[in-house]
Amino acid sequence: MNPSLSETHSAVPTTVNVDLGDRSYPIYIGSGLLDQPHLLQRHVHGRRVLVVTNTTVAPLYLDKVVHALTTENSNVSVESVILPDGEQYKDMDTLMKVFDKAIESRLDRRSTFVALGGGVIGDMCGFAAASFLRGINFIQIPTTVMAQVDSSVGGKTGINHRLGKNLIGAFYQPQCVLIDTDTLNTLPERELASGFAEVIKYGLIRDAEFFEWQEKNMHALMARDPNALAYAIKRSCENKAEVVSLDEKESGLRATLNLGHTFGHAIETGVGYGQWLHGEAVAAGTVMAVDMSYRLGWIDDSIVKRVGDILKQTKLPTSPPETVTMDMFKSVMAVDKKVADGLLRLILLKGPLGNCVFTGDYDRKALDDTLRAFCKS
Amino acid sequence: MNPSLSETHSAVPTTVNVDLGDRSYPIYIGSGLLDQPHLLQRHVHGRRVLVVTNTTVAPLYLDKVVHALTTENSNVSVESVILPDGEQYKDMDTLMKVFDKAIESRLDRRSTFVALGGGVIGDMCGFAAASFLRGINFIQIPTTVMAQVDSSVGGKTGINHRLGKNLIGAFYQPQCVLIDTDTLNTLPERELASGFAEVIKYGLIRDAEFFEWQEKNMHALMARDPNALAYAIKRSCENKAEVVSLDEKESGLRATLNLGHTFGHAIETGVGYGQWLHGEAVAAGTVMAVDMSYRLGWIDDSIVKRVGDILKQTKLPTSPPETVTMDMFKSVMAVDKKVADGLLRLILLKGPLGNCVFTGDYDRKALDDTLRAFCKS
Repeated sequence: MNPSLSETHSAVPTTVNVDLGDRSYPIYIGSGLLDQPHLLQRHVHGRRVLVVTNTTVAPLYLDKVVHALTTENSNVSVESVILPDGEQYKDMDTLMKVFDKAIESRLDRRSTFVALGGGVIGDMCGFAAASFLRGINFIQIPTTVMAQVDSSVGGKTGINHRLGKNLIGAFYQPQCVLIDTDTLNTLPERELASGFAEVIKYGLIRDAEFFEWQEKNMHALMARDPNALAYAIKRSCENKAEVVSLDEKESGLRATLNLGHTFGHAIETGVGYGQWLHGEAVAAGTVMAVDMSYRLGWIDDSIVKRVGDILKQTKLPTSPPETVTMDMFKSVMAVDKKVADGLLRLILLKGPLGNCVFTGDYDRKALDDTLRAFCKS
Repeated sequence: MNPSLSETHSAVPTTVNVDLGDRSYPIYIGSGLLDQPHLLQRHVHGRRVLVVTNTTVAPLYLDKVVHALTTENSNVSVESVILPDGEQYKDMDTLMKVFDKAIESRLDRRSTFVALGGGVIGDMCGFAAASFLRGINFIQIPTTVMAQVDSSVGGKTGINHRLGKNLIGAFYQPQCVLIDTDTLNTLPERELASGFAEVIKYGLIRDAEFFEWQEKNMHALMARDPNALAYAIKRSCENKAEVVSLDEKESGLRATLNLGHTFGHAIETGVGYGQWLHGEAVAAGTVMAVDMSYRLGWIDDSIVKRVGDILKQTKLPTSPPETVTMDMFKSVMAVDKKVADGLLRLILLKGPLGNCVFTGDYDRKALDDTLRAFCKS
C-alpha cells in the first residue's frame, strides 16, 4: 500500500499531558506535526494570532506555521514579529517589540501568541502573553532540543536582567506545546548538544534508567537518529510534566530541575549573555554540582566518572571559561532565585544515581573548594 | 477617662475581606493604622522589604512606614525606591528602577514589596511584585481616595503603553491592603475629588442606596468629614471585594467596574498621561457612558440629571477636553482591553438606578452620537 500525503500527515502524535487542573495542557510530539493544521487550530480560540519568532527560525518555519494556522480557516488573521536571535536579546527592550506589534495589530484578550523558536523565544513570548492585557493565551512551538525537552514545558517564562538570568517573569502555562521533531533537522550541532545537557539532567536527578539509556544511545542522539531523539524528547517531557504537575510554582521539588543551573547561570551572566549557549553553561555547571556533591561525600566517584564520560560524548564543556572568576560566581549566585532569606540553596546529587536534594544545608567549605577547583582566579 | 497614646493606637480597624480561596486577604480601614506595627508585620514573612513610593509621598509617610515595619522587629531590613510622581511615569523605564533596586538590595523570593502611594504606585509595585523572580509577596498601603476605594483592591496591576492605558500587567493579589484614613489629610483637593469618581461609580452600577447616601453626603466628603470618608471607603471596598471575589480575572461581572473607563482611558491617552487625573477622566467618561445609555433608551433622564448634579458637587469635569477628537477616541478605544474579536464592549447603565450591563450589543449610532455630542472635531 502506498499511503497518500494526507494519510502520512495524519499520523497520530505522541501526547504527554501536563496535569494542572483547569490549566492542564497536552504536549504533542512527532514528525510532521506542523503539517497537521488541526493540532494547532484546536487551541486557537480568538481571531487574531501573533507569531513571535527570530531571524534564524523565521526563514525556515514561519510560512509553515502561518499555513498551519490559516489553512481551511478563514476565521483567523496571523501577524508575526521577528526578533533578533540570541540570549543577549532576552531583555525588556526586545520584549517591548512584542507588545508594540501586538497593540499595533489590534490583538485583544481573546487573541493568541505563538512562540516559534528556541528557549529564548519561548520564555519571552510566554512572558509577553502573561503580561499583555494581563494575560492572553499562547502556544509553544519549540524548534530546539533545549526548548523541546525542557523550557517550553511547565510555564516558566521571563527575561534576563543585566545582573542575573530570568529575574523578571511569570509562571504562565501555554494552551499546548507542539513539538515537530523534523525541526531538529535544521538545528546547528552546537545547539543540538546544548539541549542534551537538560536530557542528562533528568537522568541524574530522578530517572537512573533514562540515564543508562542515554549512556548507550548518546551516539545515536548526536547522529540525530529520529527514533532516539523522539524517545529522549518524550521521556524528558514525561519527567518534566510530572515534576511540574506536583510543584508548579517551585516551592520545592521543581527546583531540582535546576541541577547545575545556579553555577550555569553565573557562567552565562559572567561571560556575557549569548556567548555560551544555555546548555553549555548547564553542562559545566552540572560538573561543578557533581564535584561539590562528591566533596560532601554524598555520591561515590563512579557517578562523577559517568557524568564526565557522557558529557564527553556530547562535546559539551565540562568547566567554566577562564574569564569567570570566583568573585563573579559568588556575586551572581547571591541574586539567584533560589536564595531565601540570604541563604543560597543548591541542587546536589545524594545517594545512588537518580537521586538529588534541594538544600541550603551543606558545608560552605565544599562550595568554596569546588569554586576554587574550577576557577583560575 | 483619658486614654493613653497606645490605647488610642490599638483601636480595632474595620476589616473587609476579599474572598479568593487561598489568595484571600484583608483590607484594614481606619484612622492611625500606620501606628499599629503588628498590622503590617503579620503580613511580612521574609527578612527583606522594599518600599516602593514616590517623591510626593516619601517625605510624608516613608519614615512612618519604615518605623511600622521595623519597630520591635530586628528580623527585617527595609530598603526603599522613590519614583517620580505621576501617571506619565507609569511605564517600563520607571518599572525597571524597581527591579534594579530589588536586585541590588538582594531581595529574594521570600521578600516583600510594599506599595506606598496612590494608584500609579500600587499598579507599578504590584506588577513588579508579580514579575520579580516570577512573583513575590506585596502589600498595598494606598494614600489617595482613588487607591483606597478602588485600585489597591482586587489585584489589577500594570503599566501603560504609549498607545494605551494598563495594556501590560498582571492579575496579582496583595497579602493585605492597609488603609490609614489619616493619610487623606495631606491629599490635594484635586486628588480628593478624583477618587470620588470611583465612589460614584459603585453607586451607579450596583448600589443605588449608596448613591443616594452620596447625594446627601457629598458636601461632607468634599469637606473631608472623617466619618463620611471612612464610610465611603468601607462601602466602596465592600462593593469592590464582592465583585472581585465573584470574577477575579474579569470574565464578565468585574468589567462593570469600568463604567466610564473606556471613554476615560481614551481621554487620558489622548490628552497625554498625567495631564488629567484618572478620576477626572473617569468622571467625564461616566457622563459620556450615561449619555449613551440614555440615547439607547436604556435609562430615563432623571438618572442623567442626578449624575450631572452629583458630579457638579465634586467639581469634577463632565466633558472631555477640546483637544481630544472623535478620531482620537476611536483609535484609543480600538485597543481597549474590553475589545474581543474586534468588537468593543462597553459598560452602560440599563434600567433603574444601580443597574448596568457589559455588552457589545448596542446600536453603533448611539456611540457615534455620543462622541459627536462631546467632541468639537
